[in-house]
Amino acid sequence: MSSEPCFDIAHLAHVELLTDKPAESLDFFVNVYGLTESGREGDSVFLRAWDDYEFHTLKLTAAKTTGIGHVAYRATSEQALRRRVEAIEAMGCGIGWVDGDLGHGRAYRFRDPDDHVFEIYFDTNKYVAPPHERPALKNQPQRNHGRGCAVRRLDHLNLLARDVAAIRDFLPKALGSRVTEQIVLDSGEVGGCWFTVNNKSYDIAYTRDHTGSLGRFHHVTYAVDQREHVLEAADIFLENGVYIETGPHKHAVQQTFFLYVYEPAGNRVEIANAGARLILDPDWQTVTWTEEERKKGQAWGLKTIESFHTHGTPPVPAAGH
Amino acid sequence: MSSEPCFDIAHLAHVELLTDKPAESLDFFVNVYGLTESGREGDSVFLRAWDDYEFHTLKLTAAKTTGIGHVAYRATSEQALRRRVEAIEAMGCGIGWVDGDLGHGRAYRFRDPDDHVFEIYFDTNKYVAPPHERPALKNQPQRNHGRGCAVRRLDHLNLLARDVAAIRDFLPKALGSRVTEQIVLDSGEVGGCWFTVNNKSYDIAYTRDHTGSLGRFHHVTYAVDQREHVLEAADIFLENGVYIETGPHKHAVQQTFFLYVYEPAGNRVEIANAGARLILDPDWQTVTWTEEERKKGQAWGLKTIESFHTHGTPPVPAAGH
Amino acid sequence: MSSEPCFDIAHLAHVELLTDKPAESLDFFVNVYGLTESGREGDSVFLRAWDDYEFHTLKLTAAKTTGIGHVAYRATSEQALRRRVEAIEAMGCGIGWVDGDLGHGRAYRFRDPDDHVFEIYFDTNKYVAPPHERPALKNQPQRNHGRGCAVRRLDHLNLLARDVAAIRDFLPKALGSRVTEQIVLDSGEVGGCWFTVNNKSYDIAYTRDHTGSLGRFHHVTYAVDQREHVLEAADIFLENGVYIETGPHKHAVQQTFFLYVYEPAGNRVEIANAGARLILDPDWQTVTWTEEERKKGQAWGLKTIESFHTHGTPPVPAAGH
Amino acid sequence: MSSEPCFDIAHLAHVELLTDKPAESLDFFVNVYGLTESGREGDSVFLRAWDDYEFHTLKLTAAKTTGIGHVAYRATSEQALRRRVEAIEAMGCGIGWVDGDLGHGRAYRFRDPDDHVFEIYFDTNKYVAPPHERPALKNQPQRNHGRGCAVRRLDHLNLLARDVAAIRDFLPKALGSRVTEQIVLDSGEVGGCWFTVNNKSYDIAYTRDHTGSLGRFHHVTYAVDQREHVLEAADIFLENGVYIETGPHKHAVQQTFFLYVYEPAGNRVEIANAGARLILDPDWQTVTWTEEERKKGQAWGLKTIESFHTHGTPPVPAAGH
Repeated sequence: MSSEPCFDIAHLAHVELLTDKPAESLDFFVNVYGLTESGREGDSVFLRAWDDYEFHTLKLTAAKTTGIGHVAYRATSEQALRRRVEAIEAMGCGIGWVDGDLGHGRAYRFRDPDDHVFEIYFDTNKYVAPPHERPALKNQPQRNHGRGCAVRRLDHLNLLARDVAAIRDFLPKALGSRVTEQIVLDSGEVGGCWFTVNNKSYDIAYTRDHTGSLGRFHHVTYAVDQREHVLEAADIFLENGVYIETGPHKHAVQQTFFLYVYEPAGNRVEIANAGARLILDPDWQTVTWTEEERKKGQAWGLKTIESFHTHGTPPVPAAGH
Repeated sequence: MSSEPCFDIAHLAHVELLTDKPAESLDFFVNVYGLTESGREGDSVFLRAWDDYEFHTLKLTAAKTTGIGHVAYRATSEQALRRRVEAIEAMGCGIGWVDGDLGHGRAYRFRDPDDHVFEIYFDTNKYVAPPHERPALKNQPQRNHGRGCAVRRLDHLNLLARDVAAIRDFLPKALGSRVTEQIVLDSGEVGGCWFTVNNKSYDIAYTRDHTGSLGRFHHVTYAVDQREHVLEAADIFLENGVYIETGPHKHAVQQTFFLYVYEPAGNRVEIANAGARLILDPDWQTVTWTEEERKKGQAWGLKTIESFHTHGTPPVPAAGH
Repeated sequence: MSSEPCFDIAHLAHVELLTDKPAESLDFFVNVYGLTESGREGDSVFLRAWDDYEFHTLKLTAAKTTGIGHVAYRATSEQALRRRVEAIEAMGCGIGWVDGDLGHGRAYRFRDPDDHVFEIYFDTNKYVAPPHERPALKNQPQRNHGRGCAVRRLDHLNLLARDVAAIRDFLPKALGSRVTEQIVLDSGEVGGCWFTVNNKSYDIAYTRDHTGSLGRFHHVTYAVDQREHVLEAADIFLENGVYIETGPHKHAVQQTFFLYVYEPAGNRVEIANAGARLILDPDWQTVTWTEEERKKGQAWGLKTIESFHTHGTPPVPAAGH
Repeated sequence: MSSEPCFDIAHLAHVELLTDKPAESLDFFVNVYGLTESGREGDSVFLRAWDDYEFHTLKLTAAKTTGIGHVAYRATSEQALRRRVEAIEAMGCGIGWVDGDLGHGRAYRFRDPDDHVFEIYFDTNKYVAPPHERPALKNQPQRNHGRGCAVRRLDHLNLLARDVAAIRDFLPKALGSRVTEQIVLDSGEVGGCWFTVNNKSYDIAYTRDHTGSLGRFHHVTYAVDQREHVLEAADIFLENGVYIETGPHKHAVQQTFFLYVYEPAGNRVEIANAGARLILDPDWQTVTWTEEERKKGQAWGLKTIESFHTHGTPPVPAAGH
């Protein structure tokens, strides 16, 4: 008899990103990337895409450096949240409850093995559009103004870790995540690992941090509806002088149609389209890519740009890149 | 404290469609719509789209008439299947276990209040591509030959019912489905109802059968990756002499980008793209459309074509067309 | 031996549109349709799309009514202009020279048989982008801000005429236009006629004015790069409360992918994509559509909306609509 | 007073490509690239895209090597052809008249300064679709079967030359071509030059042959309607094991959205989309790119792949690549 999948966590909810150029970063996220400000508190601005149903999906916080503040997932119910907290406390990596902020109620915080801070919560603040943000169609939380890249919703993030295999053990236990794809190097080390808690093919990925640092950030991604929107975004970045690192092209892993840029403070940001791809199979078998297979580059042959393996935030002083 | 959502059913798995023109229907589904034959048994041909992970998603059965044979959902585990069977038996609408076919193991059958036959199962036959169907990328079940409309995967189906409100009560109890959107007429009757068991915004819809008949079929839909593929499909249907009923256009309800045609035997078939839209919210509140709102037509103003309200299969002899 | 085609006229250059709601029309053309203001003079605002090479392609003039002010074509040289003026004067429909405006030098004006005013000129004012409008790529006249529909360039216009057959004789003589497609009714009357002076499949079309009025306007069209941009425009119009008359859909005639709306003063405006279609053949044979063929509706079966045959500007007081 | 542009040549008409793997090349062009065979004669197969109006646009000829056989342009009339022949004969590079083939009548042949063979003609064989190739819409020469990449029409070709500046002088005199864009290196040498005889932004390009060879071929390009079709083509090439050299990406020069592959014999073939871009200006000023500007790579930052500067056909034995 099959073991039962865990459905305690509903979805990736928001990401807190740190910036040491808060004004420039905010201008990028609002006017070029196309997010909407939904509130401010302390050093943070709360941002959202037009199809995000919660108050915010990006918390942009002014700081002395860049990188990730915390990652948040929403539970499927209060009971499910309680089950996860019990499991995480038993794993010995819990931090404890925090009060929440403009975007949601109390949340439970913990650390992954690479020292990134996560939180889980159920009680949330759903977005209610003010009059000038009311959409023409009532099954959409907010009007799409078509400003800049006009990204639709938070899709996933990518963190760096010294030991991706440890994360591969950790996330299924902590969140009930499934490992949909992974890269296993000839040495046996895990080069990258893609996880999901729902029907998306991934909501978080981890790749190896070659610098040996802890707690670093690789990129955050919002989804657009069509591949053509990714192409249009490339022109928008070009016209706005945003540094385009690589793309548009199609990843072999997960087949995502990607475009990577750096926001003004140096955090990597992606725009992506996954077409109609979903993981519907409840007993999906992890797809494992070998080192040999990954040498072919991306789906259509693009060689992976060197900085994709080295650039993370915050920067590592002596990392030679 | 919130009640807990049910995750016993993983996804819509396949649809059995009846045809009284089996050769013409098969030619349409393979050469124009772009499905692949994966096997034959008795009067049935098993068909699949290139990204379907199971053996088949469409069972095309030669019969004296048209319409739906049965609808199948896959459970998330054996335990989940058992829970659903117990619930359905308690509801008094069970038929009993059947042996399964080329596509899956034993399944439990039951009837909805409008006399459509459903089955649920867990034990399945996952597709293993023969050499000429092996894809270039290993995270895809089958090669995409780009034949005809080259649809990607089964998306949803739409059934007709005399009493949609009864279905609105039934499916959440039987399958744990959520009602994501509905149309409630001024009379209080439910004009249409959209359900999902997972993160798709719907996997089955019911709309009112004005003829008073039971057990009829409205349409089945496969998804393509991009709206442009729906436009290309329109040209393919045009060149192949397929009757285009309406579209391409965007539905207001669910915002699906749609195109409806009739296959040679008269069953309505849709090609659709939903962009990046997903229902991630675990406590999504049903969106209710009023009669007044629906009078505006589709999203961009197209008036709903009359036959969309009247044409179903099998045809109704005295239905006043 | 074949007769030689005429190359005296290079392209459709601009359209002067009248509006009795100048502020609302200007807001529509700039913020929703996505044109850029390049200057003002008297009661007129000069507007341009980001890939138009001349100063303007739309002259929006405040007036007591709506409809067309004049239509302008640019000649291929001064000599070619002189040849055309001679030909037109010999045809007896000339008005005479005018001084030009912010957009170009002196121009010769004449009337078509339906009393629409045309002008032809060679001496022009090419657009020089101010710093904030400078594009990232130097082979493009202006930056694309992605504002609203962000249309690329003027494509064509459509005028109404009591006697389209008379126009079919007139334009080839006056401008050297070729008739690429036409509709000939069973009565022998010409229902519509599509003309071009270059490799575009048409730059002006005339369709029958059933009201018997003279000098009326049907629509003006700007091109976008991709069909997806037409779909995006539909959402932008929806969110901005712009009246969508019909589309998006594909015309059978000329195969244009179209979307028609009314700007606030009531003039019909189109957004269109023609894909890679060009008329390269120097001895192209006119394609003639019969009344029977046109009864099939548009390419994918959409029935032509009634107002498309009746709505023109300025409105006709007693025209029954 | 401006000088008058020349309109004697209507358009690029066809390209003869040599292959030393005729069966494999033919399979590629028909089943993967999506051309249709319209006839055979001697060692040649005549191929066409579904929107080409002439009998063929590609003549694929079995030979001992690869590269270009000849390039053909169609004149706008018999008189225009005669004028061009006189001009070319006066330039001293004429070869003389040939009889034509299945695709067209007698043609006049000449050589460019790099020893490529050209021909010009007016008398042509327009394609008449046999019953199984008749399109649903009568304004289209042939049915689009959607086979493989289903390219729409011949767009342009790119030849290599030792001295591109010499070609820049030659083509305007021989064909009346205009130079729309060019790359001028710091040394003063012309690195590349793009020419057109009509409203397309280019129909032929020349880039420097660093091997010092004569008469070599860089690539031939067919157009598709939408950028999405270029992306789809990338997947089709991937599934069919075709070598993808670079792309999809957007060129800075001419802004073409490109994808380059090698057909089985090694000739480079492109699929491209130019959106709605046209050169309408009769006195267009050549856009000149500097060496510095070209160092930025393609429009969105992709570095030009090394083989793009070195691979041409036929291969050069001692060229070190």
